[in-house]
Amino acid sequence: MSNEITATILSIGDELLIGQTINTNAGWMGGQLAQIGIRVRRVLTIGDDRDEILDALDKADTDVLLITGGLGPTKDDITKQVLCQFFDTRLVRHPHIEARIAEFFRSLGRAPLEVNLAQADLPEACTVVPNERGTASGMWFERSLGADRKRVFVGMPGVPYEMHTMMERHVLPELQRVFAPPTIVHRTILTTGLGESHLAQRIAAWEDSLAEDGIKLAYLPSPGIVKLRLSTYANNDPVGARARVGRKAEQLYRLVPELIYGEGEDRLEQVVGRLLKERGQTLSLAESCTGGYVSHLITSVPGSSAYFTGGVVSYANAVKMEELGIPSDMLELNGAVSRPVVEQMAQGVRQALRTDWSMAFSGVAGPDGGTPEKPVGTVWIAVAGPSGVRSVQGFFPGTRDLVIQRSALAGLNLLRKELIA
Amino acid sequence: MSNEITATILSIGDELLIGQTINTNAGWMGGQLAQIGIRVRRVLTIGDDRDEILDALDKADTDVLLITGGLGPTKDDITKQVLCQFFDTRLVRHPHIEARIAEFFRSLGRAPLEVNLAQADLPEACTVVPNERGTASGMWFERSLGADRKRVFVGMPGVPYEMHTMMERHVLPELQRVFAPPTIVHRTILTTGLGESHLAQRIAAWEDSLAEDGIKLAYLPSPGIVKLRLSTYANNDPVGARARVGRKAEQLYRLVPELIYGEGEDRLEQVVGRLLKERGQTLSLAESCTGGYVSHLITSVPGSSAYFTGGVVSYANAVKMEELGIPSDMLELNGAVSRPVVEQMAQGVRQALRTDWSMAFSGVAGPDGGTPEKPVGTVWIAVAGPSGVRSVQGFFPGTRDLVIQRSALAGLNLLRKELIA
Repeated sequence: MSNEITATILSIGDELLIGQTINTNAGWMGGQLAQIGIRVRRVLTIGDDRDEILDALDKADTDVLLITGGLGPTKDDITKQVLCQFFDTRLVRHPHIEARIAEFFRSLGRAPLEVNLAQADLPEACTVVPNERGTASGMWFERSLGADRKRVFVGMPGVPYEMHTMMERHVLPELQRVFAPPTIVHRTILTTGLGESHLAQRIAAWEDSLAEDGIKLAYLPSPGIVKLRLSTYANNDPVGARARVGRKAEQLYRLVPELIYGEGEDRLEQVVGRLLKERGQTLSLAESCTGGYVSHLITSVPGSSAYFTGGVVSYANAVKMEELGIPSDMLELNGAVSRPVVEQMAQGVRQALRTDWSMAFSGVAGPDGGTPEKPVGTVWIAVAGPSGVRSVQGFFPGTRDLVIQRSALAGLNLLRKELIA
Repeated sequence: MSNEITATILSIGDELLIGQTINTNAGWMGGQLAQIGIRVRRVLTIGDDRDEILDALDKADTDVLLITGGLGPTKDDITKQVLCQFFDTRLVRHPHIEARIAEFFRSLGRAPLEVNLAQADLPEACTVVPNERGTASGMWFERSLGADRKRVFVGMPGVPYEMHTMMERHVLPELQRVFAPPTIVHRTILTTGLGESHLAQRIAAWEDSLAEDGIKLAYLPSPGIVKLRLSTYANNDPVGARARVGRKAEQLYRLVPELIYGEGEDRLEQVVGRLLKERGQTLSLAESCTGGYVSHLITSVPGSSAYFTGGVVSYANAVKMEELGIPSDMLELNGAVSRPVVEQMAQGVRQALRTDWSMAFSGVAGPDGGTPEKPVGTVWIAVAGPSGVRSVQGFFPGTRDLVIQRSALAGLNLLRKELIA
């Protein structure tokens, strides 16, 4: 497509090349650009090296070049200086940015060093992009390519949350304004509980029907979750395009209602939180094999104190007995990883913390501790609520981290289904 | 340096460009190459696109080009075909590999499809690199650059654990044999408790003294942590080089002993776990603002059940009172985020769970709930142990996630210092 808008992502930092830091920025930016109809053609990662950076700037052949990293206060951060050289401009001090940096350090109770204040030195030829989360400003450069075409270069900090805010509030809207890329309507529907190939089988007929409406489907699998992304070009009729996608989404909801837990950026712990909040109900947790991870997920949601009361991490059997009221003969008879124990854990914590709902986890996270009857990955999950307790056994073989993650997802989805039942 | 051996990593896959999959392979490979003295100059990530791949192969200007991805059995996987075109060769079927693939599917109880068997078709001009973990073989190509120099291209599967095994068993040893890169001695010392620029000030004189010993220093910062990497060329005397680096490391230990928590890949929760295990002592936790995250870190370490008994996530004040014995007038008088409350939390959980040590966290994780006296990021942390309780106030402004992460690090480091005191 000749009027397609393309982008290169240039990630700068020695730490990326040696595996010290995983480059999560590039993927995030690629996803964001796709949302507004800009295609990333390549991601180039290089070190804090003048010649390499100049070479990459020189060879830019896409409409957009988004650069991250190398804007810190130390002397190996040279991106700003190299951009100055490339655009044949000089650094000028911005007094209001200098004042903001000084204020930022004062708010931390520290005095800014001169290297910190020097972050207010920015290339004269650029438009400064505000950094609302940190001290390294962004820089927007344009280079005319003759006729109507231009190439945009944007330098941003490599700290993910600073860059995210800068992209969302400034860079993405400005790119849309400058390039007016063809609008794509996306809708991403989130499922859990069925693997990719089995899900594909179940929705095969529906998938075949998408083409006639000009809708494309992508399967985006990750551990325990399959995201289904519907997309279509708006062709100057975004309302109509959204309605077309909406009709197909509705059909999918009717087809696999129990598998769908949300859309877009929803996380299962947010969905569960919203349901609890709507109902004015509360939750407590008793975690053994998940070791606090489910509590962490629940409390990572801002405002979770409205419905989450607390929990017990009962790693040792003594804690299961004393804090959750598990009889010692029940533990001896069934073992900690069993239906009776996990159900008693859920009921015990629900009673102790006087909540409407509770969840409990007991399993073998590994790598050790597996037996032929209960191999690593065996997990019992219980949800207790106003009308009793319900439990399921899951089997999630894999690394310790994966067992914990998959258990958490399965538990949250069980709670979600109980909440809407 | 003219005899430095350099590498490019070429990561192929549409899923990498849209952020569906994070490119963890490139960083891992960079770390492995650095260990054997090969420097990664750049990482290039492109889609499954013939022209882009050919262009990248054409422009290779390093000694080594390591390629991952695009070797799967489906029709969007084209890396093998493009390598054939580039090296002007053809695919030939390898019967023993075909037999292995058929056997692999039989072991899963499935019949191989022809697309699976076609993974035994490999370029005639390459040396096949065995894949002990999957069905996509690796491919090693060499191109003479005249005189003694040659360029090596290696195609590998993108599945991380398949690639890791292939690299470790075959590719890295072969690269060492072919290029005999200069050996580099690395040592990475991990610090927490002081930001990068202040740390740099404190160790400035020591840093200046490194050059005369031919040692380079890199600062590798991440939230709450600054890693200091010392490296030097071994110049045919690895023992001497290690000793040189060792002397400087020792000086650093004497300079900032309270900041150093480990080396290399150590995580603070592992270090604390080792210390507890060595002492045969146990730990419990009372978490408010960290919401289970510290328990999660502790229990993410295999074998943590040997020293971690459990914990209480006391999100609601009622839980603080009932499970941890906080008097209600203490909460009213001081607020939950205060020294007396966090100390009582630590002592309460230590008593209830009868452990040698305990840690407690109470703070304002945000984004709401801050006040002028206790803004978001204010955290009280207490460690209780055999000889009493010790508490500190931290201030970690930032996103909710960052407040939680930084609090956890600060608490673990406080516990570490108490354990070795």
